[in-house]
Amino acid sequence: MSVNEDLPNFADMLLSRIREIGNPVLVGLDPHHALLPPEYQDAIRSKDRAKMAGAIEDFCIRVIDAVHDIVPAVKPQVAFFEQLGPDGYQALENVVTAAKRSGLVVISDSKRGDIGSTAAAYADYHIGAGSERLLPDVKNLNADAMTVNPYLGSDTLEPFLKFVAQGKGIFVLVKTSNPGSSDFQDRVLENTSGLMLYEAVAEKLSSIGEVHVGEFGLSSIGIVVGATYPEQANSLRQRFPNLWFLVPGFGAQGADAADVAKCFNCEGEGAIVNASRSLLFSYKDHKYEALAKKDWALSTRQAAVDMANELTNILSRE
Amino acid sequence: MSVNEDLPNFADMLLSRIREIGNPVLVGLDPHHALLPPEYQDAIRSKDRAKMAGAIEDFCIRVIDAVHDIVPAVKPQVAFFEQLGPDGYQALENVVTAAKRSGLVVISDSKRGDIGSTAAAYADYHIGAGSERLLPDVKNLNADAMTVNPYLGSDTLEPFLKFVAQGKGIFVLVKTSNPGSSDFQDRVLENTSGLMLYEAVAEKLSSIGEVHVGEFGLSSIGIVVGATYPEQANSLRQRFPNLWFLVPGFGAQGADAADVAKCFNCEGEGAIVNASRSLLFSYKDHKYEALAKKDWALSTRQAAVDMANELTNILSRE
Repeated sequence: MSVNEDLPNFADMLLSRIREIGNPVLVGLDPHHALLPPEYQDAIRSKDRAKMAGAIEDFCIRVIDAVHDIVPAVKPQVAFFEQLGPDGYQALENVVTAAKRSGLVVISDSKRGDIGSTAAAYADYHIGAGSERLLPDVKNLNADAMTVNPYLGSDTLEPFLKFVAQGKGIFVLVKTSNPGSSDFQDRVLENTSGLMLYEAVAEKLSSIGEVHVGEFGLSSIGIVVGATYPEQANSLRQRFPNLWFLVPGFGAQGADAADVAKCFNCEGEGAIVNASRSLLFSYKDHKYEALAKKDWALSTRQAAVDMANELTNILSRE
Repeated sequence: MSVNEDLPNFADMLLSRIREIGNPVLVGLDPHHALLPPEYQDAIRSKDRAKMAGAIEDFCIRVIDAVHDIVPAVKPQVAFFEQLGPDGYQALENVVTAAKRSGLVVISDSKRGDIGSTAAAYADYHIGAGSERLLPDVKNLNADAMTVNPYLGSDTLEPFLKFVAQGKGIFVLVKTSNPGSSDFQDRVLENTSGLMLYEAVAEKLSSIGEVHVGEFGLSSIGIVVGATYPEQANSLRQRFPNLWFLVPGFGAQGADAADVAKCFNCEGEGAIVNASRSLLFSYKDHKYEALAKKDWALSTRQAAVDMANELTNILSRE
């Protein structure tokens, strides 16, 4: 049960939105410059950051327009905006504003982590809201949630938790989708009967997250779990029923719907599944050629519909 | 020996600069809004990001002017700039440009970490240079080095290493200075005769770093080791003679010169010691009151001189 019954709860908000829309698709806004549709390539080739940022902003906003009524949430990947410096951050802010106006839940994929007052500055910018703002009334990104890196330790999560108590969410990296995630995350810890580092991180988060559990039994503290490791995902899902899962790895990275299904609880809930390239750049896919000829954004919409159907089908069978 | 003998080597460049200046002081550019000298407080109170960013930029550039001929390097803390969105990034770029023009080595303290093409975007912005640029000829931060988070695994370091091979450096978080760094970093790994996670990370980095060792025997891959843990620092120093140490924790965080000394090799080299608040905001310190009355920047300069003397004294005694 939440200790903040009078305040909004991110976990509840996310689940309500998913139920309303009817699928758990998270559209990753990863505007790879080289993959943008031809209409943007002049801007990209200009080497002018303002023009390049204008192109990725326009591209992302057209994606938002194309999917806002059929998916619950989007996840801008901050790196692609940061790459363009000040112009990129202006584009990022405009994209987040457009997404929130369209009713989408917005998760800032920033993977920040730092100590004390520095983590506080990151938290304030990405998810700062309400009475806990460090710079009250100063414009910020104001996403609904953000991704966070746990390596520095649980004390470094505290500045983010202040905003979780104000209705925001965090997704902490636990078992990431990349091949090298085994290097450190899979190291077995001594005197634990076989616990791996990523499991120890999840354990800690589950305990920290208890006070942020909403009325549906899920916490506003979630974890990032790659669908590319379905066995590990399944085991985490069984052990930590109160944690939201943010699931990368579907599509371009190789995981299929059956892998992804392991991240959901027995009600077919508790996870949100990211796809980026397979949706954003589906205009390059033979399957969507006819639609893409009319408008690349139609192929993105259709790819999102297809992904949603694939997920809801497999979840209804489980 | 370096495999890139024809290319510049960050490790050699940093050591040369330290020898030239005669001390290993790294001035952390952490412009905490609330602590800025009174002349900036109107801008801070304006809640206008452009004015606030102008204030932190001006403050940092005055610090650079005050110390550029007596310290080898500065480390802008990106969070305090990011907190102000696009205006903050513009200020950050101006500060880095000013620092480089003054001959200072610049380490972008961004603690980034992400997978594949995303890490590549971060690397490209912070330290991108030369033939490996992802967006050639597009303006970027172009710092000399940056801090990186290892949690995602060694494959995620590769995009950064491309630029290390072009003469840039990275400092990877290993044993951080905060109290909670023990949560995960100090977990003992099974079947390792007592190796802790942070030691396993350092081991991996030492091995990756071998090909980037310059003519002075130090690698352009360094590690972040908090002086607040002097025993651990000492043990890391003994085991990994080829790694540069970036050492936070001196001053405001509680470590003294004797603690810091443990991070140096027997030549009194191989580490660079960060201090932020104790230098930047020394105008608040009774000890520097008389100087600060004339100009707050004079107190910053004097505090840097005092810190340099403290370090060189203890290193000459070791």
